[in-house]
Amino acid sequence: MADTHTLSATDFTVPTEDRHFEDYSIGAVYEYGYVSVTEQEIIEFARCYDPQRMHVDPEFAASGPYGGIIASGWQSAGLLMRLFVAHYLPGPASLGSPGAEEIRWAVPLRPGDVLTLRTTTEQTRLSESKPDRGLVITRAELCNADGGCPVSLRAVNLVATRQRDPA
Amino acid sequence: MADTHTLSATDFTVPTEDRHFEDYSIGAVYEYGYVSVTEQEIIEFARCYDPQRMHVDPEFAASGPYGGIIASGWQSAGLLMRLFVAHYLPGPASLGSPGAEEIRWAVPLRPGDVLTLRTTTEQTRLSESKPDRGLVITRAELCNADGGCPVSLRAVNLVATRQRDPA
Repeated sequence: MADTHTLSATDFTVPTEDRHFEDYSIGAVYEYGYVSVTEQEIIEFARCYDPQRMHVDPEFAASGPYGGIIASGWQSAGLLMRLFVAHYLPGPASLGSPGAEEIRWAVPLRPGDVLTLRTTTEQTRLSESKPDRGLVITRAELCNADGGCPVSLRAVNLVATRQRDPA
Repeated sequence: MADTHTLSATDFTVPTEDRHFEDYSIGAVYEYGYVSVTEQEIIEFARCYDPQRMHVDPEFAASGPYGGIIASGWQSAGLLMRLFVAHYLPGPASLGSPGAEEIRWAVPLRPGDVLTLRTTTEQTRLSESKPDRGLVITRAELCNADGGCPVSLRAVNLVATRQRDPA
């Protein structure tokens, strides 16, 4: 897997290992890159999880509405997640996710596309029942070099507060 | 990959190869199974797409909130999709998807869980601009033997009408 890095002028000041709920600021926008997949990786993923012909059969795909092999939307989401985990989510303070909203597959993801993740922190809300954690709600967009976004979604993540750690 | 089959008393009367928009009936409920993943498959997927410790590090996961390795939510969605493609979506008449709504990861998906897909067709709507296709909106739930659903979502699929085929 290629090394990835921050593309925006600003980023978190705290590395993922030490990052906690308090480090997420509403309105912060960051960019990270790059990820990419080959046709072979698209086909292998799809054979296991989404064996529709547009994802696994180059000949069928060439004559179909997309004019060639395109990635499963679930692999696209996985590629978004790869950058989201490497750069945006906290490490040990990540407590999982209850769900995601508004997944959009606006344009096809094709072999060789060079993809960038843009994150916008939309909401941070301390849990009322468990004050050792909070919800971080993030708009995440994985976009290609033409500015089209093969996948975007609203991520909801449970993140531990710093107080939670042993003193 | 293990062979899967219909678990409900009723199913589509038309096989996926010949299935079109007209074959989807609002209110129809079907069940299909089974899928499962091993701890090794969970770790391999997560190393590539979601390398959070709860998904890749058995020791860390054992001491964490879930008490052991759990699958990435994106792999859970992929397992749902495997059954959705094998049994519910049409073959050549599937024209892709603009997105998905309300992804919920209600309970963890663990190694060895025996999982069933339940589909409920919620809406079918002929396209106004392109009458050769329609939207099929489906509630899809992947549930374990205890009745908990590691992933559920609302799928939106573009499906060709039968008239679209050459006469």
